[in-house]
Amino acid sequence: MQTLKVDVGHTIYPIKIGPGLLGDGELLDSLIPGRDLCVVTNTTVAGLYLEKLQATLGARRGDARRIVHCVLPDGEQYKTLDTVGRVFDAMVDARLNRDSTILALGGGVVGDIAGFAAACYQRGVGYVQLPTTLLAQVDSSVGGKTGVNHPGGKNLIGAFHQPLAVVADTDTLATLPARELRAGLAEVIKYGCIRDPLLFDWLELNIDNLTRKEPEALAYAIGRSCEIKAEVVGQDERESNVRAVLNFGHTFGHAIEAATAYAAYLHGEAVGLGMLMAADLSRRLGWIDAAEYARIRDLLMRAGLPTEAPRIGVARALELMQMDKKVLSGTVRLVLLERLGRAVVTGAYEQSMLDATLAEYCA
Amino acid sequence: MQTLKVDVGHTIYPIKIGPGLLGDGELLDSLIPGRDLCVVTNTTVAGLYLEKLQATLGARRGDARRIVHCVLPDGEQYKTLDTVGRVFDAMVDARLNRDSTILALGGGVVGDIAGFAAACYQRGVGYVQLPTTLLAQVDSSVGGKTGVNHPGGKNLIGAFHQPLAVVADTDTLATLPARELRAGLAEVIKYGCIRDPLLFDWLELNIDNLTRKEPEALAYAIGRSCEIKAEVVGQDERESNVRAVLNFGHTFGHAIEAATAYAAYLHGEAVGLGMLMAADLSRRLGWIDAAEYARIRDLLMRAGLPTEAPRIGVARALELMQMDKKVLSGTVRLVLLERLGRAVVTGAYEQSMLDATLAEYCA
Repeated sequence: MQTLKVDVGHTIYPIKIGPGLLGDGELLDSLIPGRDLCVVTNTTVAGLYLEKLQATLGARRGDARRIVHCVLPDGEQYKTLDTVGRVFDAMVDARLNRDSTILALGGGVVGDIAGFAAACYQRGVGYVQLPTTLLAQVDSSVGGKTGVNHPGGKNLIGAFHQPLAVVADTDTLATLPARELRAGLAEVIKYGCIRDPLLFDWLELNIDNLTRKEPEALAYAIGRSCEIKAEVVGQDERESNVRAVLNFGHTFGHAIEAATAYAAYLHGEAVGLGMLMAADLSRRLGWIDAAEYARIRDLLMRAGLPTEAPRIGVARALELMQMDKKVLSGTVRLVLLERLGRAVVTGAYEQSMLDATLAEYCA
Repeated sequence: MQTLKVDVGHTIYPIKIGPGLLGDGELLDSLIPGRDLCVVTNTTVAGLYLEKLQATLGARRGDARRIVHCVLPDGEQYKTLDTVGRVFDAMVDARLNRDSTILALGGGVVGDIAGFAAACYQRGVGYVQLPTTLLAQVDSSVGGKTGVNHPGGKNLIGAFHQPLAVVADTDTLATLPARELRAGLAEVIKYGCIRDPLLFDWLELNIDNLTRKEPEALAYAIGRSCEIKAEVVGQDERESNVRAVLNFGHTFGHAIEAATAYAAYLHGEAVGLGMLMAADLSRRLGWIDAAEYARIRDLLMRAGLPTEAPRIGVARALELMQMDKKVLSGTVRLVLLERLGRAVVTGAYEQSMLDATLAEYCA
């Protein structure tokens, strides 16, 4: 088991990564406070891991714990304010109080919804992330960004609310569909692009081991991703500055997700497309060269990610990008690459270059 | 104009109290940042003050400001997650970004909804409270508690999110219906009961001046109430301990509001009833004497507040009180009076005494 920590000043919490952790009662007991627990999960994950988790938690404390659960429909299109309302309903029905703890058992959608519910229920209860997808284990479960989508844009409603702990049981990846695994690899590739050229090199050598779920390769990719995420979040919890680089590919990707009603692409797939578009714009601006762009494109392809974006139209793409949370006083700020392994957040690009990228991918 | 300040450590903000402040462009300009503003108000207040506020804000900066608004239905029964969704819709429609500012123009319901929308929109934007009811001016606009009701309980969904400033234009009380004014007086009486026996004495002498809206008396009551609230909130923003005394009367009152679907009583009226019940329980426990109980009851009556509670039944009252946010590990903690002017938060009361109080008022 690897142990990392996230230190954002007002709170510090552990990330635990390893096989079999959902069966480790001693570990979970030490990390999960409270008498009353509410497991938030979805229909797919509930069928695979809910009973196991309940057994692990119940086995040690028995009657001292009261465990209720709320099973949501599976899919990004359900990451809405209405679905958060269902979590509140379940918690009120079970008469859960402010000293209850929410457990987010699932992927990024479950974690974002459960974390937001924890931020708002009785003005804030604790929660623990139990990510079961690669994307959640390498990215969304760490850092305290919670929230839901709005028809007008991705993640527009939410809160910063750090979990009490993140417990990534890598055994859960065994049941993860190949498409979901690939979506998670997009975020791993992202860390290489923005912050760690050596990780990018390593990924080029190991991408096939990852797509066939070789445990040692996965453990390294998850650990290194969490290290980078924890470091960046520790420097800038509220995304005043440096944290924004973690959004590489996301402004384009969010526009794609919103334009397709959050139903056609997995988040990681849209981010992969967005990274390609951001890399393309970086190349047009002369910041990275054609060879670097090609390396990024090739790695995304080898990871099995889509490299053809949906033809949503340039105007619609621009309109949706205007709703990005990084927009300040009307200027869309983008995360672009100065070189492979180094990203900047900037509004200082030529609009004609952005138009050209959008024309290439979306027209 | 009186100026007070609220200092919660991570932020300090001013409370401005006085006549004519909604027409003071220089003051509002100095307190409200951002290019894009969203005024959140309700149908009643919009008819009275929205145009005036827009004129004041527009007159100075003209095109430099973009002002949109969202007009909600009027009433505590609309303080729901759905209504917050309407604020989000209006903000997304207007393409408001993270550097926008929300202005809460109205009473406690508007302030709570607008503040919660500000806490969650793009994971947090700034907001300014412009309270137009006595209750909002003396209590709810100060301290950063935001949120909405759930059918199962009052204020169960929300966030702590401090405003950038509170601007209480006392001229707005001229249009306030007598019933609303009386509801606000309940919270003023509360401060006397829990923290300031001299304020209680002053209220006994001045209650008639207040009910007939004598400006000097109102100004003193508002200023002193805000001083006490700012002091308590400054000591304990997140209600870890001392802030809970501000909930005197609220656990009983919230149960009454929930049992009557938030439609029969104004919040202040329910709190007035709750204070009477908390005082009754304090008397039964032998903590205050019959004369002190009678003084509280008499003052509430002279303020024109109801002193007969709805007969919601003891069991239903107890059930709803279980959803109070002060409940810890199943114990309902109540704010009770050790003496007139001094409150404690405690779970150490005899259940039979609570049952007797509920039997007297609710059976």
